[in-house]
Amino acid sequence: MSDPDVITAEHDDTDDAYALDRRSVAAILDAVEHGDAERLTALMEPLHAADIADLLEQIGSSDRRSLITLYGKEFDGEILSELDEAIREDVVKALSPQVLSDAVREMDSDDVVDLLEDLERPQQEAILQVLEAADRLAVERGLSYPDYSAGRLMQREVVMAPEHWTVGQAIDFMRNHEDLPDQFYHIILVDPRLRPAGYVTLGKLMSSRREIRLSAITEDSFRVFEIDEEEADVAYAFNQYHLISAPVVDGDGRLVGVITIDDAMTVLDEEHDEDIKRLAGVGDESLLDSTLEIVRNRFPWLLVNLGTAVLASLVIAQFEATLTAIVALAVLMPIIASMGGNAGTQSMTVAVRALATRDLTSSNALRVLRREVVASLLNGCVFAVIMGIIGVVWFGTPMLGVVLGLAMIINLVVAGLAGVAVPMALERVGVDPALASGTFVTTVTDVVGFFAFLGLAGILLL
Amino acid sequence: MSDPDVITAEHDDTDDAYALDRRSVAAILDAVEHGDAERLTALMEPLHAADIADLLEQIGSSDRRSLITLYGKEFDGEILSELDEAIREDVVKALSPQVLSDAVREMDSDDVVDLLEDLERPQQEAILQVLEAADRLAVERGLSYPDYSAGRLMQREVVMAPEHWTVGQAIDFMRNHEDLPDQFYHIILVDPRLRPAGYVTLGKLMSSRREIRLSAITEDSFRVFEIDEEEADVAYAFNQYHLISAPVVDGDGRLVGVITIDDAMTVLDEEHDEDIKRLAGVGDESLLDSTLEIVRNRFPWLLVNLGTAVLASLVIAQFEATLTAIVALAVLMPIIASMGGNAGTQSMTVAVRALATRDLTSSNALRVLRREVVASLLNGCVFAVIMGIIGVVWFGTPMLGVVLGLAMIINLVVAGLAGVAVPMALERVGVDPALASGTFVTTVTDVVGFFAFLGLAGILLL
Repeated sequence: MSDPDVITAEHDDTDDAYALDRRSVAAILDAVEHGDAERLTALMEPLHAADIADLLEQIGSSDRRSLITLYGKEFDGEILSELDEAIREDVVKALSPQVLSDAVREMDSDDVVDLLEDLERPQQEAILQVLEAADRLAVERGLSYPDYSAGRLMQREVVMAPEHWTVGQAIDFMRNHEDLPDQFYHIILVDPRLRPAGYVTLGKLMSSRREIRLSAITEDSFRVFEIDEEEADVAYAFNQYHLISAPVVDGDGRLVGVITIDDAMTVLDEEHDEDIKRLAGVGDESLLDSTLEIVRNRFPWLLVNLGTAVLASLVIAQFEATLTAIVALAVLMPIIASMGGNAGTQSMTVAVRALATRDLTSSNALRVLRREVVASLLNGCVFAVIMGIIGVVWFGTPMLGVVLGLAMIINLVVAGLAGVAVPMALERVGVDPALASGTFVTTVTDVVGFFAFLGLAGILLL
Repeated sequence: MSDPDVITAEHDDTDDAYALDRRSVAAILDAVEHGDAERLTALMEPLHAADIADLLEQIGSSDRRSLITLYGKEFDGEILSELDEAIREDVVKALSPQVLSDAVREMDSDDVVDLLEDLERPQQEAILQVLEAADRLAVERGLSYPDYSAGRLMQREVVMAPEHWTVGQAIDFMRNHEDLPDQFYHIILVDPRLRPAGYVTLGKLMSSRREIRLSAITEDSFRVFEIDEEEADVAYAFNQYHLISAPVVDGDGRLVGVITIDDAMTVLDEEHDEDIKRLAGVGDESLLDSTLEIVRNRFPWLLVNLGTAVLASLVIAQFEATLTAIVALAVLMPIIASMGGNAGTQSMTVAVRALATRDLTSSNALRVLRREVVASLLNGCVFAVIMGIIGVVWFGTPMLGVVLGLAMIINLVVAGLAGVAVPMALERVGVDPALASGTFVTTVTDVVGFFAFLGLAGILLL
């Protein structure tokens, strides 16, 4: 006989090679329950800070507080950096002042900025107090840049060299320099006014002869970001041009920091998450939000949807006489609405994505629209036939089949058109298409669908 | 008076600092039309290969062929790597044999693998023929790994060192080695059997004294991937653990290649794109697909949706008598369906995302479900009041308001439950929740919504 528990754990392992498995979470919670600090520390030891953060996010809030208390001074700054902002405040509150200040002091200044930006003012102050004067200044400077800007994303530790240096000079400089950052991949060349002029990869440096000038072995992919550039644009450029790191400059073009690809990857991931959730009308909801936050977050979109649904109902109300005469129409109405809504969502999603990746532009908009209409027309004709058959077989009225079929063609073509036109129009007026397209598109398909179906029925069936 | 053309161009510039602007696309197309090769080359010169690929994707297919012919031998391999697979075949066909073989010969072997895997067999053969014997072997080896595996993603050029070496030995080795890869950021330490034992960043190497052992300055974040591991899991691990590069091993644990973060970032981006499109039922549709491909791609999901819509209609058909008696019910039905569908999509999207990021696990599933039900109940109560008022004011029947309110509460709670339970159940049986959740969830909300609304109406209003 096999042990079911073992099977579950094995299944977990193959599925989630990198995440916490169910069994270790259970063992950790058991250690917390028994107040066994030694066992807890042993169980947590193999976990990466990112995994510990995930663990803290997955367990309940009272378990979380007990675990933090028991884990005590083992808690380090990297875990704080990895935590979802929704529970950061809770965790910071649960840490003893001593543990908190130790954790924060060992963090890089850009990580402290990242931590502080989501905390309330009093907590920010408390953490700034424990930092040394120089670090505090760096953090306060970081916080002074706009939210979601290149300035917030960059690290201030930069390895640079004058552009006229040779490979040998750069190597000697680095070999004699004790305080190089832990992670760096390029040397940035600067002119006498500290303006970046190119960059050299460490690999290229290692494999070049000492007398070669740095300016002769710079990379083609060099790109510079302004400090107030939006981080979403930075992430897009990293992905588009396969950048590994890129310098950030201030308003005078002087080098002030560097952004590395791992930070850009995190931003890209967050942007995608935001897009997918905006399309569904849940803003930036996280699994860690409180019940009330969820309610507040979802309510506005449901309310907007109610408004558009009432609009659709008003259209139907115009046809009360028709509906009273033929109740079969009421039975079939949801099919029209549902097909239009789905077809609209399909073309809208492709359009929203193409706008985000900058593949849909004014250069090809007309071609895309035309293709969309033809494709919708083809699908519409096929479904018109299917619906026609359903109408005849189910209700025995050939003309009802004709009405259904015609309404289907009209609705799918309108869905295809609206699915592309609405996101493009929103983008043009500066509204995020992911945020608002869905509501507009389904309103159009509902209103047009009901109007076409009931209107045609009134003409052809009464 | 301002020149409207200038305004448009400026707007394009601020919005899309990195993409092609409309004006340069127009200028390039103009040069193509006039057959002006010199001007075309001058206009293309500042563009990154990724931008040229975007340009080829945005213009029509006959312009594309003319451009390629005119651009001639300026066309390089990097553009081929950047092209969307939907038009690669077209572009490869349009290149002259000489230009194609020059372009392919200058590509890295992993990029050639990436190019070949999407081409038809005869085109693959033609390209393999132009490669030198050693490169051809490397490419054929790459193609032998499973699709979407770590083996396909990795590059074979690896810089490694025996684990017992010192910093000085490693630096001397690299300084004397002519053939180092262009892009590398770490030295991988291997044991005598070529099994990876850790890695050292070049930055750390540069700042350490010559006599220090490499094994004393390895990074904590070391992770090894198996050659047949799925690339989606690799991308997840890079993002979760902030990896920059990671070794790939074969079945015997021997080092065979290395994956770098820029490749992982591309995969992460593709995975997100796939998820967002699967949620909308458009599979991997691209803006470049032909009209027929779009029709074929969208049809199955619309057909599934038709099936579930008919199911909802069958539910309504059970209440024909009720509908005949009170036609107002038919007018209000879409509101119930629409609210349920939207609420279901909201909680489903949060759940699908949380499953993808491995934040929703069996450890917290019950807590998430409970929270979801409470939140839906709260929203349901608020909307019940609003709907009750609409029912009374619009139709003057207080009991209709009660029916609407109750149906709304039931439908929103069921939507919240189904939105979380359906994706979790699909994940458990091994189906991608992004692919199939939507259909199931809206079926549940439609059926339950209509049943509750019309059923309650039958009991309370007749």
